[in-house]
Amino acid sequence: MEIEQQCQIAKQASSAMATLSTADKNGVILAMADALDGAHDAIFLANQSDIQMGKSAGLSSALLDRLRLTPDRLTGVANSLRAIAALPDPVGTVTTGFRRPNGLNIIQQSVPIGVLGIIYEARPNVTVDAIGLAIKSGNALVLRGSQSATHTNRALVEVLMAVASPRVPDGSVQLLHDTSRDGVSVLLGMREYIDVMIPRGGAGLIQRVVHEATMPTIETGEGICHVYVDELANLENALDIVVNAKTQRPSVCNACETVLVHESLTQWVPTIVGALVERGVTVRGCMSVQACHQQVVPAQASDWATEYLDLTVAMKIVPNCEAAIQHINQYGSHHSEVIVSDSYTAIAAFTNRVDAAAVLVNASSRFTDGGEFGFGTEMGISTQKLHVRGPVGLQHLTTSKYIVYGTGQIRG
Amino acid sequence: MEIEQQCQIAKQASSAMATLSTADKNGVILAMADALDGAHDAIFLANQSDIQMGKSAGLSSALLDRLRLTPDRLTGVANSLRAIAALPDPVGTVTTGFRRPNGLNIIQQSVPIGVLGIIYEARPNVTVDAIGLAIKSGNALVLRGSQSATHTNRALVEVLMAVASPRVPDGSVQLLHDTSRDGVSVLLGMREYIDVMIPRGGAGLIQRVVHEATMPTIETGEGICHVYVDELANLENALDIVVNAKTQRPSVCNACETVLVHESLTQWVPTIVGALVERGVTVRGCMSVQACHQQVVPAQASDWATEYLDLTVAMKIVPNCEAAIQHINQYGSHHSEVIVSDSYTAIAAFTNRVDAAAVLVNASSRFTDGGEFGFGTEMGISTQKLHVRGPVGLQHLTTSKYIVYGTGQIRG
Repeated sequence: MEIEQQCQIAKQASSAMATLSTADKNGVILAMADALDGAHDAIFLANQSDIQMGKSAGLSSALLDRLRLTPDRLTGVANSLRAIAALPDPVGTVTTGFRRPNGLNIIQQSVPIGVLGIIYEARPNVTVDAIGLAIKSGNALVLRGSQSATHTNRALVEVLMAVASPRVPDGSVQLLHDTSRDGVSVLLGMREYIDVMIPRGGAGLIQRVVHEATMPTIETGEGICHVYVDELANLENALDIVVNAKTQRPSVCNACETVLVHESLTQWVPTIVGALVERGVTVRGCMSVQACHQQVVPAQASDWATEYLDLTVAMKIVPNCEAAIQHINQYGSHHSEVIVSDSYTAIAAFTNRVDAAAVLVNASSRFTDGGEFGFGTEMGISTQKLHVRGPVGLQHLTTSKYIVYGTGQIRG
Repeated sequence: MEIEQQCQIAKQASSAMATLSTADKNGVILAMADALDGAHDAIFLANQSDIQMGKSAGLSSALLDRLRLTPDRLTGVANSLRAIAALPDPVGTVTTGFRRPNGLNIIQQSVPIGVLGIIYEARPNVTVDAIGLAIKSGNALVLRGSQSATHTNRALVEVLMAVASPRVPDGSVQLLHDTSRDGVSVLLGMREYIDVMIPRGGAGLIQRVVHEATMPTIETGEGICHVYVDELANLENALDIVVNAKTQRPSVCNACETVLVHESLTQWVPTIVGALVERGVTVRGCMSVQACHQQVVPAQASDWATEYLDLTVAMKIVPNCEAAIQHINQYGSHHSEVIVSDSYTAIAAFTNRVDAAAVLVNASSRFTDGGEFGFGTEMGISTQKLHVRGPVGLQHLTTSKYIVYGTGQIRG
């Protein structure tokens, strides 16, 4: 089937999706979790085909690892569906309401967006999470997965959708058959059928989507996050936070990429560099940092704008908090920015003037996360400013509708 | 100066804009209103140049009328600034806040978006409104006005910005010098500097902007709005509402374009057609409506998808509320949809299933409006689903920032 046809089918299904009851939505999502538990064999078989094709095609071991489903991972994915079923229904919340002087009673209520589009790379768990989140939020869904995960995605969608009917309308979840690169451009032109496009993957994919899409997008994922260690920092906290932000899971967007240190702490720099090096981190430092520790590699100008996503960190000594704020606003990706300090003045300047989805005071950047914020399973972390900024939770997959109750009012 | 350079200057000014105090913002906006009052002569002179050039270029009288500033209109524009000054500051509101089990205290606070871009057609009042709204919401602003209003826009910006300094940073309002058609494409590529682009004008402009823009946009303005008169309608209310929605101001987006009438009311159709015809309205009807009244013109299929914006209306008899809902969801522009009825069941179906920014029960579609909703001066009416749906008020010119207060927390 053609991309346009599949998008059209999703659009047609979307109005019936929008009025599903909470009980039906949760019932289907829980049935999907059970169906996944009962279909390990079929899914592993499909996954094995993708892995073997990936090996023949020379995919990197990192990519093959992301693609691979294990019993543990599949159980994790099923439990993620159960967690989605346990979240409150985001549809139908009255967010505001008021009476006007002319007697009109106006309420604003949350309603599904319509059709969500997701373009993503190898990880098959995104297929399942996206289906769970779309059903729970009453949206139809168009999934454009990676060519390399074709068999796995098909098997997952087949297992899940087998238990969806008749409560969830047929056609509401469309896994695109066309996974060609040109197909992405066709998909990004489907403004008529798709209300929002969410890219999930590397910077290249995200930039292509946000520039080329004709429909609104939610930009997620790029994180050039900083930890600024201020003059008045508690140095024990600072060391814990820098090490945690850099090393606890370096491959994710809320990991730290650059450490900025107040110049009064130059004597402390060997301690923090040593702690990082000990954990296998390569430190790329400015001249002053290089002078503090033998194992510091010279930083290039490009380092300040690099999202390493591995055990590498840039480090710079700055004259004051003001310089840290300026550096962050120039090079940061507006994701998560940390200050470690005990100065009320410095913290106020930093939280007021750093331009980011989240500013963290004396806490690791790793906390910017839907789960850590208490939102449950998330659809990524938005670094754009419209619609949603920060973790994208279920409620951000809804829009609003004003309902105006009158008694015959006309406008004079 | 080049478009890119002007956008860059606005971006540089935006961080200082974001931290302006409410007192400074209101003080500048009120000073601007007074400056307008004191500069009528200079502004009329500039406006006269544009009008004369427009006449030579053969602009329509409707366009010339939109372009023309009169003393009344200029006073209205100044008072609109005073109304903006009187609105609450949208920046700094804590919209949510909670404590996590690990002791992190998280708040979410409204902050300016950064740089707003506005592309608009001839009306010079948009220049002033946009400047007032941008300053009040702490945003820098890039204005791309119409070539035909160049002298007027320059004079207005000069008068307003003369009293802005030093409280409002220099460069924060950029009226683009390049008003060429190609310049629009350049501007729509300035994702690096402009955070959101808002088109204000006709359907052609809006469609070009939402399709071509690389930055997020707020789609405003297209309104194919329906009034559905249900079987159980109060027919006095129905007549008032249809006439008001169609004729009170036919050129605006929340005016009615199509009337749908329940087939049980066929005997009432001559009454409503007569009332409309009496007010100079051309009624383009389906076969059944044609049979009811001699002066009904046959409707073509394209009429159901037409935004007339004048004294023309399409009219169709439908078998039931369900058919009305389907017609509206197929042909409507998701702006404002009206049901006139006393049936709880019909009203519930209509409000639940019609897909629109506003659904109005027993009230004219003309009420979907920032002023009528009590939001004050608006930046148009959004018909998109992301970020804001319905009237775009001051609060929609902000985004949010999470501030996370910790005591040394790291992630385990």
